Amino acid sequence: MDPYASYIRRYKAKTGKSKRFYLKAEKLFPGGISHNIRYFEPYPIFANAARGKSIFDVDGNKYTDYWMGHWALILGHSPPPVASALSKQIKHGTLYGVANDLSVELAEAIQKIMPRAEMMRFSSTGSEATMYAVRLARAKTGRRVIAKAIGGWHGFNTTLMQTVNFPFEVEEGPGLVQDEGQYVESVPFNDLEASLKVLETIKDDLACVIIEPVLGGAGCIPPAKGYLEGLQQFCKKNGALFILDEIVTGFRLSLHGAQATYRLEPDLFTLGKICGGGMPIGVVCGDKDIMSLADPVSIRNKEARCAIGGGTFSANPATMAAGLATLDFLRKNEHKVYGKVDRLGNMARQGLAKIFADAKIPCSVTGTNSIFLTHFVKDDISAIENATDVATSDRGKLIKYHLALMAEHNIFFLPTKMAAVSYMHDESDIRKMLSATDKIVSSGLFKIK
Amino acid sequence: MDPYASYIRRYKAKTGKSKRFYLKAEKLFPGGISHNIRYFEPYPIFANAARGKSIFDVDGNKYTDYWMGHWALILGHSPPPVASALSKQIKHGTLYGVANDLSVELAEAIQKIMPRAEMMRFSSTGSEATMYAVRLARAKTGRRVIAKAIGGWHGFNTTLMQTVNFPFEVEEGPGLVQDEGQYVESVPFNDLEASLKVLETIKDDLACVIIEPVLGGAGCIPPAKGYLEGLQQFCKKNGALFILDEIVTGFRLSLHGAQATYRLEPDLFTLGKICGGGMPIGVVCGDKDIMSLADPVSIRNKEARCAIGGGTFSANPATMAAGLATLDFLRKNEHKVYGKVDRLGNMARQGLAKIFADAKIPCSVTGTNSIFLTHFVKDDISAIENATDVATSDRGKLIKYHLALMAEHNIFFLPTKMAAVSYMHDESDIRKMLSATDKIVSSGLFKIK
Repeated sequence: MDPYASYIRRYKAKTGKSKRFYLKAEKLFPGGISHNIRYFEPYPIFANAARGKSIFDVDGNKYTDYWMGHWALILGHSPPPVASALSKQIKHGTLYGVANDLSVELAEAIQKIMPRAEMMRFSSTGSEATMYAVRLARAKTGRRVIAKAIGGWHGFNTTLMQTVNFPFEVEEGPGLVQDEGQYVESVPFNDLEASLKVLETIKDDLACVIIEPVLGGAGCIPPAKGYLEGLQQFCKKNGALFILDEIVTGFRLSLHGAQATYRLEPDLFTLGKICGGGMPIGVVCGDKDIMSLADPVSIRNKEARCAIGGGTFSANPATMAAGLATLDFLRKNEHKVYGKVDRLGNMARQGLAKIFADAKIPCSVTGTNSIFLTHFVKDDISAIENATDVATSDRGKLIKYHLALMAEHNIFFLPTKMAAVSYMHDESDIRKMLSATDKIVSSGLFKIK
Repeated sequence: MDPYASYIRRYKAKTGKSKRFYLKAEKLFPGGISHNIRYFEPYPIFANAARGKSIFDVDGNKYTDYWMGHWALILGHSPPPVASALSKQIKHGTLYGVANDLSVELAEAIQKIMPRAEMMRFSSTGSEATMYAVRLARAKTGRRVIAKAIGGWHGFNTTLMQTVNFPFEVEEGPGLVQDEGQYVESVPFNDLEASLKVLETIKDDLACVIIEPVLGGAGCIPPAKGYLEGLQQFCKKNGALFILDEIVTGFRLSLHGAQATYRLEPDLFTLGKICGGGMPIGVVCGDKDIMSLADPVSIRNKEARCAIGGGTFSANPATMAAGLATLDFLRKNEHKVYGKVDRLGNMARQGLAKIFADAKIPCSVTGTNSIFLTHFVKDDISAIENATDVATSDRGKLIKYHLALMAEHNIFFLPTKMAAVSYMHDESDIRKMLSATDKIVSSGLFKIK
């Protein structure tokens, strides 16, 4: 029996209840899920609890989780300080719908950590935050064109749903009107010369460059030295805004985000995930003069005011309380937390690279700090530098590898997606993950063509 | 001293701490808030708790709340069954980031109540849900034009941020590129003949009509008899989709929404607010064949698949648990809940109309079921039929009236916005609100020009 068939059999044997849930779910939801990436073959597990580093499925299986809520849970699932803050808050309102004390406190906490957040607005999702960021950029500059990276992921909003999935030159599907996308241009990540060439052709109408400092959804790709600085310099020189999408990297690459790590000075940036403490959040923030274009108090004329949300759930006290508890813990334990997760991230990357190298399986383990991903590349020398490299690597092998980790070793990676270490993980978890990988290599899984 | 100055003085005297929070907030947030409508003069209260029908501010004032979390909280703030479900859930994960049992259960609960939700997808906000609904309509029909009502509010997404604020013919501010709005046409609410005339001119490229059955943000305007049916009929006849935005009216006008009340058969509809139990949610749902266009499992080619979210927080177990507890309570207590809130809504509308009529203050109290709003119209005979009628009524008087209720009577209406009664309100609350209104009339507030 081929090893993958055997892993699939093992997976099915222990996830019978998940399968029954999936049979219901596929009648209720297109594809049985509420986010495309959450489907995987043969059918996804259905979770019913998560605590610390572990996620549990409806069959009672317990997995060590390296997906960690789309990388949002740097302190693990329901960490005590956050659960305790939430537990108090939910008895006293989860949705005031008005200005509130906690939103001021969370904004102050964010500003203390990231002083470039001179002003901010809370939304409920990252997709909203990036949409408002580019709208503000257009309002500020009076220009129309938005540049993003090929493979750059900024959520499902209409404006930025361009060059997201491979093949990148093909439209992102029906329902997106071409005219809406005509002012979005894409640049090849990590190729500064080629990127600047593209930007040069559009510079007179260029409102902004919006970019993830580390490509996340596209495959965990850190920036080449000088790449982000080069884009930033071009923007500053040409009157365009430089927007850093730190929804993944904020409070993840360091407490102070990628802008501290790479010494960047974005005009605007977006936050989300970690700063909501596991509750829905998006933040658009940055330069006071730009943010002020959305001020409904000083700009009464709607024609002059940049219309950004907000929304019913923006700045809701449940999210604010969870976010505050998270940032408070991170600030008080900055060196402990980041020291640990970075160390475990390094251990994972180095350990995986060694295992695959020893087994002569062409592979590139990308990442930085506490995030990582394995790519089965075509040969030893091919590196992963951009989204195309990821998309053209052997994704089938990666799916099989991640499924095998789940099936045989109770280790959960969302198949093909970047992994994140939380403060709840420890060295023994990484050792187990490495040893499981070793066993999967020995099973012959990667020899199958 | 003029009565309004006196109410303002009273408001300031009791909200000193809110003022201090506001002075901080206006440095942190454009306008000091995270949603434009949450600002009001002289500065908003800053809430720090909410329970049942009451909201509390940082100065310790307790208000009877008629805003109810943007009308989302039909069971009041932190109702025991919801708080209890949340309290259990938050110890076991608030963000699994994968398929989960509760999302299936909530979808089944929604489908049981609204059988037209053949399939659905959860997002985290209403703004996302409406964006996905119109994207699906364009995908289904292969057409581009979206028709909405003048004053219709479907969130801050780029596509539908058109003809939202008065004056409606003026663009909604900088940052929205004209080309993005070129395929949105607006029709005058409640004027079927004029609406059909507009639709007739665009019918060949008309993807959908998206409409709130009761205009909410634009001023609580129920549909004229036959209006929605007429639009629906036009859509069905001309191959366009009829999309009902039930984010406000779902589980509000009746358990089964406005589609039951007005016997409509939308192809797609959106839900939000109430079905999240006070936690962030949006739902796009409807016809199976249309929803299936977003299926990532059966449609592997991205060019053929309609790309809708999802998002990090979609179907998160905290929202799912709160939503389930809410719908469960509503189903088990349908007649009690809707009987009560509808009765109180009627009592409010009739009582307010009588008070203002007796005082010979030209006024129209609009609404239906448990939602209502007072409009100070130009003369006795002018009715409120559309968003322009609302926008051209005396909004200054309404601001003063709502501020006076807060200042003197500890009754909270978000100034100028529609009110909602919850199951936690009772007759004595409505009587107090009416008697407060009576006193405000007697104070001479409405005599000021």
